[in-house]
Amino acid sequence: MNLRSYLPILEWLPSYKKSWLKGDIPAGLTVGVMLIPQGMAYAMLAGLPPIYGLYASIIPLILYAIFGTSRQLAVGPVAMVALLIAAGVGTMAETGSDQFIALAITLAILVGIIQLAMGVFRLGFLVNFLSHPVISGFTSAAALIIGFSQLKHLLGINIPRSNHIHEIIGNAIANASAINIGTVIVGVGAIALILFVKKIKFAIPGPLLAVVFGILAVWGFGLFDQGVKIVGNVPDGLPAFTMPAFDLASIKELLPIALTISFIGFMESIAVAKAVQAKHKDYRVEPNQELIALGLANIGGAFFKAFPVTGGFSRTAVNDQSGAKTGMSSIISAVLIALTLLFLTPLFYYLPKAILASVIMVAVFGLIDFKEAKYLWKADRADFWMLLATFIGTLALGIEEGILIGVVLSLGMLIFRTTTPHYAVLGKIPGKPHYRNLNRFENLEHRKDVLIFRFDARLYFANVSFFRQNFEKEMEKAGDQLKLVILDTDSMNGIDSSGVHALKDFADFCKSKNIEFYLVGMKGPIRDIAHKSGLIDSLGEDKFFFRIQHAIDSFDNVKERRYKKYALQTDET
Amino acid sequence: MNLRSYLPILEWLPSYKKSWLKGDIPAGLTVGVMLIPQGMAYAMLAGLPPIYGLYASIIPLILYAIFGTSRQLAVGPVAMVALLIAAGVGTMAETGSDQFIALAITLAILVGIIQLAMGVFRLGFLVNFLSHPVISGFTSAAALIIGFSQLKHLLGINIPRSNHIHEIIGNAIANASAINIGTVIVGVGAIALILFVKKIKFAIPGPLLAVVFGILAVWGFGLFDQGVKIVGNVPDGLPAFTMPAFDLASIKELLPIALTISFIGFMESIAVAKAVQAKHKDYRVEPNQELIALGLANIGGAFFKAFPVTGGFSRTAVNDQSGAKTGMSSIISAVLIALTLLFLTPLFYYLPKAILASVIMVAVFGLIDFKEAKYLWKADRADFWMLLATFIGTLALGIEEGILIGVVLSLGMLIFRTTTPHYAVLGKIPGKPHYRNLNRFENLEHRKDVLIFRFDARLYFANVSFFRQNFEKEMEKAGDQLKLVILDTDSMNGIDSSGVHALKDFADFCKSKNIEFYLVGMKGPIRDIAHKSGLIDSLGEDKFFFRIQHAIDSFDNVKERRYKKYALQTDET
Repeated sequence: MNLRSYLPILEWLPSYKKSWLKGDIPAGLTVGVMLIPQGMAYAMLAGLPPIYGLYASIIPLILYAIFGTSRQLAVGPVAMVALLIAAGVGTMAETGSDQFIALAITLAILVGIIQLAMGVFRLGFLVNFLSHPVISGFTSAAALIIGFSQLKHLLGINIPRSNHIHEIIGNAIANASAINIGTVIVGVGAIALILFVKKIKFAIPGPLLAVVFGILAVWGFGLFDQGVKIVGNVPDGLPAFTMPAFDLASIKELLPIALTISFIGFMESIAVAKAVQAKHKDYRVEPNQELIALGLANIGGAFFKAFPVTGGFSRTAVNDQSGAKTGMSSIISAVLIALTLLFLTPLFYYLPKAILASVIMVAVFGLIDFKEAKYLWKADRADFWMLLATFIGTLALGIEEGILIGVVLSLGMLIFRTTTPHYAVLGKIPGKPHYRNLNRFENLEHRKDVLIFRFDARLYFANVSFFRQNFEKEMEKAGDQLKLVILDTDSMNGIDSSGVHALKDFADFCKSKNIEFYLVGMKGPIRDIAHKSGLIDSLGEDKFFFRIQHAIDSFDNVKERRYKKYALQTDET
Repeated sequence: MNLRSYLPILEWLPSYKKSWLKGDIPAGLTVGVMLIPQGMAYAMLAGLPPIYGLYASIIPLILYAIFGTSRQLAVGPVAMVALLIAAGVGTMAETGSDQFIALAITLAILVGIIQLAMGVFRLGFLVNFLSHPVISGFTSAAALIIGFSQLKHLLGINIPRSNHIHEIIGNAIANASAINIGTVIVGVGAIALILFVKKIKFAIPGPLLAVVFGILAVWGFGLFDQGVKIVGNVPDGLPAFTMPAFDLASIKELLPIALTISFIGFMESIAVAKAVQAKHKDYRVEPNQELIALGLANIGGAFFKAFPVTGGFSRTAVNDQSGAKTGMSSIISAVLIALTLLFLTPLFYYLPKAILASVIMVAVFGLIDFKEAKYLWKADRADFWMLLATFIGTLALGIEEGILIGVVLSLGMLIFRTTTPHYAVLGKIPGKPHYRNLNRFENLEHRKDVLIFRFDARLYFANVSFFRQNFEKEMEKAGDQLKLVILDTDSMNGIDSSGVHALKDFADFCKSKNIEFYLVGMKGPIRDIAHKSGLIDSLGEDKFFFRIQHAIDSFDNVKERRYKKYALQTDET
C-alpha cells in the first residue's frame, strides 16, 4: 500500500489534462444544478429545513473527490438515507426542531466513524451478504414508503408521519376535504413537467425547471395566499464550522440507525460506483477505500452542518453521462452549491414544498423494479420469494427489519440447501470412461454390482445424516448383487471433522456388509484433511482413485485375481 | 405410514419370543437398580426431593416402550436435563419448595408438547445443526458445571447455587472451615467404591453398592448426629394422578428453558439411540418418531409427578450390554421402580446426600472429552476452535448461551467458507486429457493462451465478487497472450440469480477483451438454472462443453478454421 492508495486524488490530479475539463465542467455544473432541488427535497424528507440539503452538498463532495476511488460517483443527500434519518431521529426529537438538526448532524459523525472503521478493518466484504433479490425487494418497498411520505406535501394536508403506506393512504382519505387545490396543481404539474423533460431528453434537468416553474407560479399568482406552503426565509451564507453535539446518551440511542445508514449508504454507493466503473477502464473501485472515503466525507461534513450522505444512483448516472472524467466534476458541483448559498438563497423564498415533493416522488418511483421480480419468477423461484419477503417485510415491519429478514432468509436458504443437497447415482456413457446421472440421461450403462454415488455439497455436520441416509437408501435399492460402492467426490468441495467421522463409519458399515467402498476424485482441500484426520490411513491407500473408471478397473482386476487360483489350479504340485 | 410406524411396540410385542426374556429381564433389572440411586441423585441435582427421581422413572419408561423406535434406549432422569431444570426453575421459585416442584412438573408438560409438535411437524432434522465439536465442547463444560454443583453435598457445607465454577470454588474455599469430615469420608469413599467396581467390572452396579454402603455407614456409626446430611423421610406409594398446574404467566416464563430442554434432551437421546442402533440390524431409529415418543413420555409422566426426562447415555449403554432385546426391558425397570416405591422407601431414610453427589460426580466427569479436542487440534483446526469456543462460552456465559455460540459460530464459519472458497488454476496432465491444480502438481502442461479456472463452491450472492475478483486476477497474471478462459464448474454445485448475473457480466467482460469464455462440465441443477435464466441463450450453446479437453479441442479447431481462408485462398474464382 502506498500513499496513492490512501489518497486516490493523487492518481489523477498531478497528471490532470486540460482536455478532461471538457467533460468535468459540464458534468459538474449539471450535477450541481440537479443538487439544488434534490438536496433541498431530501433535507425536507429527512425532516430538516431544506437549506441543510445544500449544506450537505459542499464539504462531503470535496472530501470524496480526495479520498474516493470512483471518478464519477456523485456523493450527497440521497432519498433512502434521508428516509432512514427521518425514521431514526424522528422518534427522538420533533421534526425540524433545533434538537432534531443537532441529532442529524451527530448522526453524520457516527455514520462516518462507523464507515471509516469498517474500511480500516477491511469489512467492506460484509456488503456481499446483501443479495440482489434482497436489495431489489428492499429498494422497491423503500421507494414506495418514501414516495407516499410526500403525499402530504403534494396534497397540502396534514398526515401524521408513518412508515406504513396503508396508514398514510387512510389518513389522506380521512383528510381529503382539506386538500389544497393550488398545491395539487403545482405538485402534479411539476411531476408532469419532470417526466416530460425526461422523455424529450431536454438539456436542463427537469427538477430545476420544476423549481423555477414553482417559484414563478407561486410568486406570479400569489398562491401562498391560497394556502400553498412555501419554503419561506432561507438564511444565506456558507455553513460555519460548528462542533457537533456529542453526548453519550443520544449517541447510544442513535447507534442502531447509524449502523443501518452506514451499511445501506455504503451498499447503495458501492453498487452504483461499480456499475459505472464497469464502463471505464482507467481506474478500479476499491470497496474498503470507498468506505474510508464515505466515512471521511460524513465526518468532515458534520463539522459544517451536513447530515449523512452517500453516493446516489441518479446523480452519478447523470455525472457519467455528462462526461465526468475525474473527481474534479464533484469539486465543481460543490463550488456551484457554495455560490448558490452565497448569492441565490433569496430566490427560494417562494419555492413551494409541493415542488420538492414532486422531485422526490419522480426520483423514487423510478426505483421500483418489477422487471427483476418477473425475471426471478421465471429463472429462480427461491430468489423470487426472497425478493417478495424482503419487499413485504420492509412495508409491513420497517426498513431495517425488512433488510434483516432478507439477509437472514438468504443465509438460511443457503444453509438449508447444503443440508439437503443434490446427489446423483451415476451410470457409464457407453463406450466412454465417463459417468453421468442415471436419472437425467437414457442409455447409460448401469452395473448391478456397482453403485456410484455423487454428493453435490461440502460434507459437514449438518448434512452427514442426510448423506448416510440417502447413500444407504440407494444401496438398498441396488439390492443383493452389490459388491462395490464408489463415492464420487467430484463436486464435494469440502469436508469437516463430522464428515470424516461419517466416511469412516460408512466404510465400517460397508465392510460389515462385505461391500468394497472406494473414494474417487478428491480435490486438494479434501485430500489435505483426509491425510491429517487419518481417513486415508484408516481406509487404506488402495481405496482412493483419481477417476471413476480407474476405481472400477481396479475392482475388476482384483476380482479377476480372486479367480486366479481357479485359472491356475493344478493338483500336480 | 401405517399404524406400526406410529406405535413401534407393534413391531415386536405381537411376535415377542420367549428367548428374548433372557436378555430383557437381566437388562431391565440392572437398569432399574441403577435408576434408584441415579434417579434420586438427578432429582436432587434438579432441585427436587430425591423421591421425585423415582416418580420420573415409571410412566415415561412405559410410554417410551410403546412409542419409541429404539429398543435399547433407557429413558428417565438425566444429569444434563436436571441441571437445566435447576438453572431454569431456580430463578422462579425456591429450590425444593412446593412451587418449585409444581413448576418442574409443568415444565415436563411443556417440554412434552414441544417435542411432540416437533415430531409431528417433522423438525427432527434441526438437531443436525449441532455439530460434533459443539456437542463435545458443550458436554464437557456442562459436566464440569454439574460436577462442581455437587461440591456442597460432598463437603457438607453451604455454597450458594451458581453456574460459574470459579464462584463455586471460591465459596468452597471461603467456607472451608465448615467442612464436615464425616460427609467428606462418606462421599469420597463412595466415589472410590464406584470407580473400583467399574474397574473390576463387578456385576452389581457401583452406585447401588455406594447407596447400600452409605446407608449402612450412617446408620451403623450414627453419622447423622455428626452433621452428615441425609435424605430423611421418604413418602411411600406410587405417584397419584395429578393435574399439573397450568397458568399462563409461569408457562411464558418457563418457555425458554422448555425449548432448551426439548432440544438438548432430544439431541442427547437421539445421539445415544443411533449409536446403539448401529450395532443392531433388526430395527431403525426414526428421529421424528423419537421426538413423538419422548414428547408423549414427558406429557404422560407429568400427570404422575414426573419432571422432564430423556434417553440417557450411561443407562442405555448398560441396558444394551446387559442384553436388552426390546422395550420389555424398560417396562421391567419401571415395574422394579414401582415396587421400590411401594415397599422399600423406608430404607432410604439414612441415605446420605453425599452418596447421591458422588453418583452424579462420577457419572458426569466421565463425559469430559479431551481426546476429541486433541484429535481436532490435529485434524481440523477450525472445528477445534469451535469446540473450545463452545466450551468456554458454556462455562463463562451459561448453558443455553454456550450452545447458541457454538451453533452460530459453526453456521457462520460455513457461510464464511462459501464466501471465500477454494479455487484453482488447472493444467494438463501430460499425455492425458485430464486437468489438475497447477499449484499442487509439478510437470503439468500450461498453455499461455488458455486459462482454466475451477471454482470450488456454489456461485451465489455472497461470493460473486470474490469469484469475479480472483478470476480477473488470474487473467491479469496470464498476460496478453490469453485468448481463451474456461470456467470448470465441476465442483460448483449450485448457482443463484446473482451467480447467473455474474457469469453474464463476466462473459461481456471477456468479449470486450476479445477473449473466448467457455463453461465446462455443468451439473444437472446448474444446467436447469442456466436454461431457465437464459444464460445458455445469451452466451450461445457453442460456449458450453462436457469436458475441459473438448473445450480446448474445439477452440483449437476454430482457430484452425480461422486460418482456413489462407489455406484455401485462390485468386482464380
